[in-house]
Amino acid sequence: MSLDLAALRAAHDRIRPHIKRTPVATRAALDAARGARLFFKCENLQAAGAFKARGACNAVFSLTDAEAAGGVVTHSSGNHAAALARAAQLRGITAHIVMPESAPPSKVRNVESYGGKITYCANSLDAREAACAEIAARTGAALIHPFDDLRVMAGQGTAALELMEEVPDLEIILCPVGGGGLLCGTAVAAKALRPGIRVIGVEPALADDVAQSFHTGRRVTIPTPATVADGLRTNSTGEKNLPLIRRHVDDIVTVSEDGIKAATRELCAGLGMVIEPSSAVPYAALLENKFPYAGKKLGLILTGGNVDLASLPWMKP
Amino acid sequence: MSLDLAALRAAHDRIRPHIKRTPVATRAALDAARGARLFFKCENLQAAGAFKARGACNAVFSLTDAEAAGGVVTHSSGNHAAALARAAQLRGITAHIVMPESAPPSKVRNVESYGGKITYCANSLDAREAACAEIAARTGAALIHPFDDLRVMAGQGTAALELMEEVPDLEIILCPVGGGGLLCGTAVAAKALRPGIRVIGVEPALADDVAQSFHTGRRVTIPTPATVADGLRTNSTGEKNLPLIRRHVDDIVTVSEDGIKAATRELCAGLGMVIEPSSAVPYAALLENKFPYAGKKLGLILTGGNVDLASLPWMKP
Repeated sequence: MSLDLAALRAAHDRIRPHIKRTPVATRAALDAARGARLFFKCENLQAAGAFKARGACNAVFSLTDAEAAGGVVTHSSGNHAAALARAAQLRGITAHIVMPESAPPSKVRNVESYGGKITYCANSLDAREAACAEIAARTGAALIHPFDDLRVMAGQGTAALELMEEVPDLEIILCPVGGGGLLCGTAVAAKALRPGIRVIGVEPALADDVAQSFHTGRRVTIPTPATVADGLRTNSTGEKNLPLIRRHVDDIVTVSEDGIKAATRELCAGLGMVIEPSSAVPYAALLENKFPYAGKKLGLILTGGNVDLASLPWMKP
Repeated sequence: MSLDLAALRAAHDRIRPHIKRTPVATRAALDAARGARLFFKCENLQAAGAFKARGACNAVFSLTDAEAAGGVVTHSSGNHAAALARAAQLRGITAHIVMPESAPPSKVRNVESYGGKITYCANSLDAREAACAEIAARTGAALIHPFDDLRVMAGQGTAALELMEEVPDLEIILCPVGGGGLLCGTAVAAKALRPGIRVIGVEPALADDVAQSFHTGRRVTIPTPATVADGLRTNSTGEKNLPLIRRHVDDIVTVSEDGIKAATRELCAGLGMVIEPSSAVPYAALLENKFPYAGKKLGLILTGGNVDLASLPWMKP
């Protein structure tokens, strides 16, 4: 398959019975505060609490029966894990989930609640990939990578499809960047439906592997990042993702930890919703004036709402 | 007027252009945790962030032009204040708001954002009533009491009308109790539409003036209560409210401060919404098993979402 509008529409049809059509929220007070018109796609209200349900369902329901027989396996810091466990449960197959020992308790519980089989490993990409490979070899499970997978990217892009269906004249669309799965799907959807739109990825400065890769053109790997945006703690860009990002994305900007914390506070209060810090990363780019947006219509994808309330960043100023 | 179903339906028609029809939220995980079916009426998503928009609009739009000419005046710990300021702004008249100096900053900002004219006073009912009387005498403003007013009660009851329209077979309906305005409107609506329903008010044990008044039959006044549920810090029951409560309400139970904090945490996480502690008081009664509810269908009114995030109770365990 190639990642294009047809693939995204096919993904949307495939996953529709298994995901929610999430609302697009607007708030006059936030518009006034930023001097722009903001449209928030509320994937925090998605099944399993994050946009990852989209990509996971598309991947799992794309498998042939023979491919699905051995179940699926992945490594993930949390939301992809829960989403894959849920998708596998819906299809009636086993999901093996490799998680770092440092994963937040709320995300562990989320995986368990969908019947996922968890294997803990050290908190490095090498350790995760080795554990995945071992499980795949032993069980025949199909690997569903959290972002370096065209089926996953196509599923993630359906959030932007829905957003642009409701607000077709968006001028800028922003999404948080971890490994680049959501960004690829979002960019392909947005540019296909409205070629003049600007697509901007926003990444924590502490986890700027994709920004560096985007600007240099080669896949940069960084030490495991410690950003408060725990959903974005990837340290390298997907192999399939980088060329798509270079082709379809206009810019990737980075934001500070203080900016992410302030944005999380401001959005929780202003939207009246519980969002995880990763969701607030695009709004942090507005707070830190990373690009001109005065008077524009902006779409922001709120990626998830799975958070241990006690760990929310305003707890530790 | 008398407070009956006709009055509530007239109020609903009167305020419909000025309020939101709020959603009824359900969460499988919360149902499983409590062993019951819970329907949350989300007045935290109401205009101005609380159910108070309903009563304030009904009162303000019930005024004749002559009565409205001098504006309106009230005293309130916050949500009624913002709601009255908003209703007055919609009608194009002045709202004078008497607030205690201890009012939370988010509620002060809320009043100011709707153009309310704030007069600060000491944190006692006497001081508030004196300030209100002085303003009314000087300006001709009409007093809109936060709860001891049939027009206000009729407006507040429209939340229960909507809830019971969507879930007509509720077996129990719960609402937080401050001075008894919401409780009266809720009880009249619920009993009129479904006589067999149980209506239970829930009050912080530290602010149990209405519970005491209900059980003794006379209006009990207590010292200004220090409950974390700042929307429920009233210290006496409305004169018009008590007989209505005695006639239509089945019971009033009280909950601990720890219960309110735990309920606030659990609902913010479980609903994925920011609610103020007052909203969580009915759920605290479930956590503390204040009455039998296993397997029942329960309606819970989430009264508001206006909260300084930094002051949420899980901050100070």
